[in-house]
Amino acid sequence: MCGIVGYIGGDPAAPFLLQGLEKLEYRGYDSAGVAVYDGTSLRVVKAKGRLQVLKGLIHDGKDVPGTVGIGHTRWATHGAPSDINSHPQVSDSGKFAVVHNGIIENYLALKQHLIRRGVSFVSETDTEVVAQLLEYYYKGDIMDAVIKVLQKVEGSYALGIICADKPDQLVAVRKDSPLIIGLGQGENFIASDVPAILSRTRDIYRLNDNEIAIIQREGVRIYDMDKELIPKEPVHVEWDVTAAEKGGYEHFMAKEIMEQPKAVRDTISPRIKDGRIVLDNITLTADQLKTFRKIFIVACGSAYHVGMVAKYVLEKMTRIPVEVDVASEFRYREPIIDEKVLVLVISQSGETADTLAAMREAKRLGARTLSIVNVVGSSIANESDDVIYTWAGPEIAVATTKAYSTQLAVVYLLAIYMADLLGCLTAEEYAAYLTELQALPDKIEKILQNRENIQYLASQHFNAKDVFFIGRNLDYAMSLEGSLKLKEISYIHSDAYAAGELKHGTISLVEDGTLVIALATHQNLFDKMMSNVKEVKARGAVVLGMTTENNTQIEQVTDHVFYIPQTCDVMLPSLTVIPLQLFAYYVASMKGCDIDKPRNLAKSVTVE
Amino acid sequence: MCGIVGYIGGDPAAPFLLQGLEKLEYRGYDSAGVAVYDGTSLRVVKAKGRLQVLKGLIHDGKDVPGTVGIGHTRWATHGAPSDINSHPQVSDSGKFAVVHNGIIENYLALKQHLIRRGVSFVSETDTEVVAQLLEYYYKGDIMDAVIKVLQKVEGSYALGIICADKPDQLVAVRKDSPLIIGLGQGENFIASDVPAILSRTRDIYRLNDNEIAIIQREGVRIYDMDKELIPKEPVHVEWDVTAAEKGGYEHFMAKEIMEQPKAVRDTISPRIKDGRIVLDNITLTADQLKTFRKIFIVACGSAYHVGMVAKYVLEKMTRIPVEVDVASEFRYREPIIDEKVLVLVISQSGETADTLAAMREAKRLGARTLSIVNVVGSSIANESDDVIYTWAGPEIAVATTKAYSTQLAVVYLLAIYMADLLGCLTAEEYAAYLTELQALPDKIEKILQNRENIQYLASQHFNAKDVFFIGRNLDYAMSLEGSLKLKEISYIHSDAYAAGELKHGTISLVEDGTLVIALATHQNLFDKMMSNVKEVKARGAVVLGMTTENNTQIEQVTDHVFYIPQTCDVMLPSLTVIPLQLFAYYVASMKGCDIDKPRNLAKSVTVE
Repeated sequence: MCGIVGYIGGDPAAPFLLQGLEKLEYRGYDSAGVAVYDGTSLRVVKAKGRLQVLKGLIHDGKDVPGTVGIGHTRWATHGAPSDINSHPQVSDSGKFAVVHNGIIENYLALKQHLIRRGVSFVSETDTEVVAQLLEYYYKGDIMDAVIKVLQKVEGSYALGIICADKPDQLVAVRKDSPLIIGLGQGENFIASDVPAILSRTRDIYRLNDNEIAIIQREGVRIYDMDKELIPKEPVHVEWDVTAAEKGGYEHFMAKEIMEQPKAVRDTISPRIKDGRIVLDNITLTADQLKTFRKIFIVACGSAYHVGMVAKYVLEKMTRIPVEVDVASEFRYREPIIDEKVLVLVISQSGETADTLAAMREAKRLGARTLSIVNVVGSSIANESDDVIYTWAGPEIAVATTKAYSTQLAVVYLLAIYMADLLGCLTAEEYAAYLTELQALPDKIEKILQNRENIQYLASQHFNAKDVFFIGRNLDYAMSLEGSLKLKEISYIHSDAYAAGELKHGTISLVEDGTLVIALATHQNLFDKMMSNVKEVKARGAVVLGMTTENNTQIEQVTDHVFYIPQTCDVMLPSLTVIPLQLFAYYVASMKGCDIDKPRNLAKSVTVE
Repeated sequence: MCGIVGYIGGDPAAPFLLQGLEKLEYRGYDSAGVAVYDGTSLRVVKAKGRLQVLKGLIHDGKDVPGTVGIGHTRWATHGAPSDINSHPQVSDSGKFAVVHNGIIENYLALKQHLIRRGVSFVSETDTEVVAQLLEYYYKGDIMDAVIKVLQKVEGSYALGIICADKPDQLVAVRKDSPLIIGLGQGENFIASDVPAILSRTRDIYRLNDNEIAIIQREGVRIYDMDKELIPKEPVHVEWDVTAAEKGGYEHFMAKEIMEQPKAVRDTISPRIKDGRIVLDNITLTADQLKTFRKIFIVACGSAYHVGMVAKYVLEKMTRIPVEVDVASEFRYREPIIDEKVLVLVISQSGETADTLAAMREAKRLGARTLSIVNVVGSSIANESDDVIYTWAGPEIAVATTKAYSTQLAVVYLLAIYMADLLGCLTAEEYAAYLTELQALPDKIEKILQNRENIQYLASQHFNAKDVFFIGRNLDYAMSLEGSLKLKEISYIHSDAYAAGELKHGTISLVEDGTLVIALATHQNLFDKMMSNVKEVKARGAVVLGMTTENNTQIEQVTDHVFYIPQTCDVMLPSLTVIPLQLFAYYVASMKGCDIDKPRNLAKSVTVE
């Protein structure tokens, strides 16, 4: 969950490194640093805190001369954020500098091994071990040293390496952490993610596990662990560079919330042709589908909440049993998986370490895999049997909004597609679902136009200490997402409960003035929800209710109401989530929180 | 979630009613009341607050003469706690008095109907509708009026009724709420639960749904809705009356925590004969078991957390896929259930309304049902195809401890039993599991002897505002229970997370000094857990770790440690839960909370 960038070429390296790190700050921002070869040795400058601190320290890079260098923005895993623990990490004599994203799991044993041989360490990081090992094994050939190190370390890593002895090259390797190589004219780049280099090039290589890249001014060569050259095709990146900027909004999150009608439309429209859903690259056949006794959904964070919705929707529409699990749990509990199970994996970045590892475990056990991913060519997309992309474009804010919404849209496409293949839908039902699906972007737009109501409600409650979200069925899944959104960016301790379960314990936390957000968008559960609302009202709660436009009787029971348009039951989550995102956003905004980069969090979680 | 008691005989009714209500206060305690026939009319006294208030008001009953009466202790559902909303509720002219446990779902329509006909209402309760309807339909025959009312009302209810015109009888009916009839010498009783009448009799009838009981001094007759007499066999209750008292402890909860070695032993021992598990009354055969493609576990609150453990344990040992759901969600989401599904239902009281309704839905869909229940002859026990009782004895504290532990013990018995029938265990494995199972009570005892360590830790942290429990696999299930226990009785906002999932959002809530309780009892996940502990430590958390006795390296990572004895992986929850209970208990005790009767909660949740 760190960001790496590297440069080799004819321009000053440091200013570009800082610029690139800025675009990667969503990956971590508790400290940052650069290492540049200044003509005689490696010059390393690091600072705890936001990138801004480092920029000030070296005057936007002007103080650090040189045309080859590496940079890093950190999200702490081993060792608290500090100058010393920042990257780049340097070897004993200063010959090697290393930036690293990931975790070296056996670093303690390796460290003790080196200490016994007289190497002294300065930091608490796992990364320093890599720098020290490189120097320890270096006998004049960097690639030999790198290969020896890779044979020793266990864990996940993307590494950028420079050596004072060979200032005409950068070395990059990766395993289970993302890394790309940018191809310029007389200059080349490495980075954790595309935005870091978009200002200079759109042609990239995606490095695979255990490939070693030797990057020089005039070219890039990629080797395998036997030092054999690997032929590689560059990929041209389509992303619009302006899409990665805020476009007039105060925060990326606001911009991304407002982009949702477009993002959802972009995700749905190309998949509907002549009144039929066409999922172009899906190789899964109807016959295969019929053999599945179960669908297993594996994801983390908000993508897991999409999985919760998908469980309800897929079970209802296909009658195939569905189980959802958080990826970090799935891996270690001997899941009952075989070739009769379809494993559906959801990840914005396609690099979420837990999810990737879970998917690999599922494949090992024989399951067929299908992924819903936003980043083309990412590890999860590459390794799953089938992939359906969400066309959300780059999402910069740490708290996901448009990726979530487009993941939901893909779930609906998939559910209708599968239900149709399985013969669970009449032609009329099929057409009706498509009509509702295509109407979603306009309805989302309508809610967004009404956002001042949410802003007002947020202004009444942004000082809340504790908030509870309650709902039943799909509204429970939405409660989970609404609560997570609020927690992530406003630091308010909130919780989501199945409304009927609250009375089995947690209702003891409700006291005079406690804010409860009650989701009651489903007609058939409306009365039950009102009973649960009365239970918390009887204990003094202030209740903010959400329902569809027809249920005006809710006003007799709740203190405030927000209405959303009507749609078919299964698609209500696409509308329900919008006011929940807005509420979290406005509350955090009124509290003055750092919305796009909340404390302790990183965008793409590429460590376990 | 209210308590009902009634008396008819030769002694003063009011003192007995107060005594009985005292034993039922665990069912609700926001207000209480009695109605007694004083020779000319019904005298009704009610008071908001604990029973103590009412007792003071009528001088322990001495101020209310008469030998027939009904009493009630309330847990608010419709209408906030108040004198007016307390029961008994009385009809317009004062002729009928009614106590009620449950919810009349269509009360608003019925109320409007009566208002249009000139009846005036004083309370906001659903119960008053019953009293008013009785008077409205009464033409001289109480049973006719009762039958008419039952035909009108929808919902769940246990009702105790007296009428000034017929002071020689009590009337009792029930549907989906518990009610028993006590049989004395020249006196008879009604009550929601056995402890209320144990001081006077051990012979009872268990009333079934839609049976109407006419209770007189000299006898009890029970009719069906066609006024046909129903023959009924009395049941003799074995419970020891002293077991329902605190036995020297400050709180029932402390007593029940300390009773766990005995309760677990009582639950396990009778089921092991000559080295084999014998589940006497189980009719489920090995052949039937082999037909199940899935086990569905349905429960609420802490019993749901037992279900979480059971999922891991049953899947691991039998390789039958298991799904766990909270009962209130299960009912309304069209679960995929048929005769190839075994539905396992867990409830202490056997009367949990959500769980009972879910079980009925499962039966309707064709599933076979097996229940784990503490109360013999309760509705869930009666209606499930098979039942395994937990021999925990009466549990009085609202926060469950020994019921939870004995439910776990039954899960282990069941898992070993099933795994053996399915041929999943070698003779050695089978014997080893039994040995570990039988060693649990002594190990629990050992932890309890060590409780001062937990008391000390509680003294360091009882002022915490927010607490997070983290764990992986079975330790995640235990985190859920540890968090619920703390919330219920100490009102500290706590939360449980799968340790690997914390970084996908909620870690933003961790700041300097946040208390995190990290469960790391599983050897194979210990290193992963230590990584997660470091993540929260890096953000300033104070970490209280729990692990088994061998893992002393935890001391390098956490601030405090509590060790539990070793046992096989699947049985660790039985040990892990004990310090979690103790921690919640001591924290609540140091905060001065009303531990046995936490605000807003009731013991047995017999409404949806």
